[in-house]
Amino acid sequence: MENERIRKITITCHSIPIVPRYAETDRAGMIHHSVFPVWFEMGRTELLRANGIVYKDLEAEGIFFVVAELRLKYRKPAFYDELLDLETTCANVTHAKVEHTYRLLRRENGLLLTEGSSILACVSADRKLRRVPEFMYPESA
Amino acid sequence: MENERIRKITITCHSIPIVPRYAETDRAGMIHHSVFPVWFEMGRTELLRANGIVYKDLEAEGIFFVVAELRLKYRKPAFYDELLDLETTCANVTHAKVEHTYRLLRRENGLLLTEGSSILACVSADRKLRRVPEFMYPESA
Amino acid sequence: MENERIRKITITCHSIPIVPRYAETDRAGMIHHSVFPVWFEMGRTELLRANGIVYKDLEAEGIFFVVAELRLKYRKPAFYDELLDLETTCANVTHAKVEHTYRLLRRENGLLLTEGSSILACVSADRKLRRVPEFMYPESA
Amino acid sequence: MENERIRKITITCHSIPIVPRYAETDRAGMIHHSVFPVWFEMGRTELLRANGIVYKDLEAEGIFFVVAELRLKYRKPAFYDELLDLETTCANVTHAKVEHTYRLLRRENGLLLTEGSSILACVSADRKLRRVPEFMYPESA
Repeated sequence: MENERIRKITITCHSIPIVPRYAETDRAGMIHHSVFPVWFEMGRTELLRANGIVYKDLEAEGIFFVVAELRLKYRKPAFYDELLDLETTCANVTHAKVEHTYRLLRRENGLLLTEGSSILACVSADRKLRRVPEFMYPESA
Repeated sequence: MENERIRKITITCHSIPIVPRYAETDRAGMIHHSVFPVWFEMGRTELLRANGIVYKDLEAEGIFFVVAELRLKYRKPAFYDELLDLETTCANVTHAKVEHTYRLLRRENGLLLTEGSSILACVSADRKLRRVPEFMYPESA
Repeated sequence: MENERIRKITITCHSIPIVPRYAETDRAGMIHHSVFPVWFEMGRTELLRANGIVYKDLEAEGIFFVVAELRLKYRKPAFYDELLDLETTCANVTHAKVEHTYRLLRRENGLLLTEGSSILACVSADRKLRRVPEFMYPESA
Repeated sequence: MENERIRKITITCHSIPIVPRYAETDRAGMIHHSVFPVWFEMGRTELLRANGIVYKDLEAEGIFFVVAELRLKYRKPAFYDELLDLETTCANVTHAKVEHTYRLLRRENGLLLTEGSSILACVSADRKLRRVPEFMYPESA
């Protein structure tokens, strides 16, 4: 049974370093605003991995998480080749959805550049909604 | 004076066709969720152009619109090479910000795939906040 | 039989308009060099469509064209929101591969900005090499 | 003088790890071929950094390297979230251009997935060609 093979989530917040790529900049000299959702997704993947879960293994078992809602607040621009920290928090899990929040900070001075949140739904390989698997519920819940 | 040279906005809603590119798909077989903000930006540019304003000319004059907030609701997946219509509406303009809403529809059946909204701030070339120019206020306002 | 249902290619050169998107620029103020392969792919898709063939239908039948080689020569920068023309030519077809060449021109003055070529291999859904289908051979061949 | 402040290049080959992102996949289930030039650019940046040179500092001094030619040979697909190694070699430097070669390998089995090469030209902030700076010449040269 999948719930026995996969470890339950115990870590709900995880930080990863991000160094913006040249291709992610735009002609205004900053990181284009469409790049942040890509980084948020990396943050979710690494939060899962910190819990011993590899997202592509979930997909291989027919468990897909798809983004249902996304919110971003851009406070300050991010720049090419500066060191950033992306904090990803699994804020809430129900049978129907998983909520994450995100904070992107400049490493050098701790300045908050971008905040965000997302709601994921869980679907099967045929894109039908399914219950969020048990292992996604934090242990404390 | 800039406000005299640039026509005032009279059209507040505009639709453009979108045909998703192969590079915009992901391994789940749909358009990746980070692509929609790119399309929304195209919608804003074409809404401006429908009003006789070319966004790059604004930047050449030192008027930059930057995304301050973004919200997306993904209802149904969009697929490679299908015909979509993106409706962009300028929903509200104040001295401090410009709000747009977006609706992405499948042409074939009118199905609403994605909804969104954004708030833009206006900055000068040195990234300092400035007032939203007069011509951005719809005539009816 | 697939070869009977699908029209044979008769048009070997096709041009499409391209208007670079904001997200395709970089902080040097030009279109990032990684964007051109995306446009070339669009050129190939539209060249096929000009011949009555929809590439996604081929994939639905298990015929995938994958890029095996790519060459680009960047002569002049392309800029945000300028009108370009991309000429795509199907230069050679054999059982093993399809060769295209590309020329990207500035509409305003006909200046050649980028040249390129690609070699596609044909694979089945399980990524095994297969013969290039008959309909890809130009009629004159 | 710039040549005195900036260390001369002594390391001509450098390897970086790459883990493909979800957004870099396409609906054929592999990494889209337009992503590799983005990774090659990262390889060049890190090769410079291994030599004590930060590319954005060069740009701040008005030294821009732009891609003049690019060649890629795609041998095997790269997949989402697998560990890759990108080897970047500075193969030749003249007053007019810098040549790099690239090899992308699957860490697990050393399989060569993609090979490539690029030629960079050196331009000033106004996009005029300029000589490649002295420090780019490997010490052994």
